[in-house]
Amino acid sequence: MKYISFTDEPGIAPDEFFMREAFKEAEKALEFDEVPIGAVIVHNGRIIGRGHNLTEQLNDVTAHAEMQAFTAAANYTGGKYLKDCTLYVTIEPCVMCAGASYWTQISKIVFAAHDEKRGFTRIKQRIIHPRTELTSGIMADKAAQLMKEFFLAKRNKS
Amino acid sequence: MKYISFTDEPGIAPDEFFMREAFKEAEKALEFDEVPIGAVIVHNGRIIGRGHNLTEQLNDVTAHAEMQAFTAAANYTGGKYLKDCTLYVTIEPCVMCAGASYWTQISKIVFAAHDEKRGFTRIKQRIIHPRTELTSGIMADKAAQLMKEFFLAKRNKS
Repeated sequence: MKYISFTDEPGIAPDEFFMREAFKEAEKALEFDEVPIGAVIVHNGRIIGRGHNLTEQLNDVTAHAEMQAFTAAANYTGGKYLKDCTLYVTIEPCVMCAGASYWTQISKIVFAAHDEKRGFTRIKQRIIHPRTELTSGIMADKAAQLMKEFFLAKRNKS
Repeated sequence: MKYISFTDEPGIAPDEFFMREAFKEAEKALEFDEVPIGAVIVHNGRIIGRGHNLTEQLNDVTAHAEMQAFTAAANYTGGKYLKDCTLYVTIEPCVMCAGASYWTQISKIVFAAHDEKRGFTRIKQRIIHPRTELTSGIMADKAAQLMKEFFLAKRNKS
């Protein structure tokens, strides 16, 4: 794995820089006809975990981008928690992934587009960790467009 | 893996029979000083997936008993969903595991003891699948006692 650092490309804002990396993961999912969602986990300006949706390839409905990225980051750090880390993900996490983020105690979640059907913010009670900050909307149009095109192509194929 | 069938021991109620199997998984976790939680997934009176908490051994806070059991059952069936299956688990699932159960579309969840702190039923909105039935309380005292003894022993060690 290449550990891409923010300082490699100082001309853009950090959030956009890392969200672009999450989109690279989403594109990997797309290549395998998976729902195109990607995620990266960043610590001190460096990507320490990457993941993309693998539900079809692994025949496992729990193999979401965020779950892969959490596990990859924990493998990298060797510690249990992802304190002082930020998750960048192209679509709002579902309840499962938000629940997983609770256990990681991750410091921040940044997602691009909302998922109105299955996104965790539909749940009125807080399910992410009390210390987890939340930001959304960065590159939201691109994320929404990617999903729209994917499902449109799926429908046209079937 | 030995596929234990309910008909192997017809003298007890099915729910208790399979919950005992979930306890066998919890005991495997305990042997490795993991929080003692176990789960099995049953289809047509037969266990098709087993799991126990592996968070310490895998250094992965998402490696809950239910997640292991879902993945094992999906590997066994080769299908994506766990329709017509029942999850037996010794402690009430957390939000992550309940969220995962949504994606599996599992038919029924049976848990032993409530988890007042992290159990998913604290969340007032329904997060499990609309078609998932829920039962609790089977062997609840045994499950609660197992957890109590585990955390007491932990405190005395540290």
